[in-house]
Amino acid sequence: MSVIYREAGRDDVASIVAMLADDELGKTRETVSDPPDPAYFEAIDAVLANPNDRIIVAERDGVVIACAQLTILHGLSRRGARRALIEAVRVAGGERGTGVGASLIRHLVGIARENGASLVQLTSDKSRTRAHAFYERLGFKGTHLGMKLELGVSPAERPPKRPA
Amino acid sequence: MSVIYREAGRDDVASIVAMLADDELGKTRETVSDPPDPAYFEAIDAVLANPNDRIIVAERDGVVIACAQLTILHGLSRRGARRALIEAVRVAGGERGTGVGASLIRHLVGIARENGASLVQLTSDKSRTRAHAFYERLGFKGTHLGMKLELGVSPAERPPKRPA
Repeated sequence: MSVIYREAGRDDVASIVAMLADDELGKTRETVSDPPDPAYFEAIDAVLANPNDRIIVAERDGVVIACAQLTILHGLSRRGARRALIEAVRVAGGERGTGVGASLIRHLVGIARENGASLVQLTSDKSRTRAHAFYERLGFKGTHLGMKLELGVSPAERPPKRPA
Repeated sequence: MSVIYREAGRDDVASIVAMLADDELGKTRETVSDPPDPAYFEAIDAVLANPNDRIIVAERDGVVIACAQLTILHGLSRRGARRALIEAVRVAGGERGTGVGASLIRHLVGIARENGASLVQLTSDKSRTRAHAFYERLGFKGTHLGMKLELGVSPAERPPKRPA
């Protein structure tokens, strides 16, 4: 059965949240409910409103089996290079090791190229050593330290987003 | 003399490019010319067109002395958390060690909070050990591996950007 790749919409939120939560680190960070928490719908609406952002899902036989987010970043450095940032890559539990993750990343790299990006970047928790090897096989090099500052703003505290 | 922080515009491109190029890694990546290369103006126009992107400059007595880029990222993970991504931080040569860099980062963190971000993230080349210590003093934790895939698209090969 062939896999198709497409941009995610509101109907995919429940599938995506289930995949985000089915993860050693993600399980403590997500809220799984039916229907999904409104915070997730606000987030996908913001993604859909911005042409630089997209969430891509891999689907086989009508079932979403993997997801990832891609953001095109414009900036001055490297002669005004565009970058593509990959975040929140997940493959459904029963689909790990089937190659769908690698195909999804190659699909994202293709979108990055179509959008003129000269660099694709991502960060991966230092504990995810299998993920690092996975990305190295796809040509990524772990040249950087990824640093995070937690601000601890809850969904309820978020101001309305600025219009896109 | 007090330092002001403001969003950069086209008039700041020459100052910013000079700072990007005055750097051990950046000097091989940038083109310094008068007027600046059109690729830089295309890039800042794309930044100005997208409400999620901004370049902030620190200015003292009418002179730009530091710059950084901040992008607000929307996504589903962490209950639809917003993130702020910092890129391309530079402080002018004569201003390093004066505290302007730390003030600039604190200013960016303030913008991130105002926009409801619960996390601020950045990557720094593994060779920039002084930068890592600088960000740690500001509360950042180096929990991630930053990975990059070079696609090698030149400015001339970039397609027009999608309308914002």
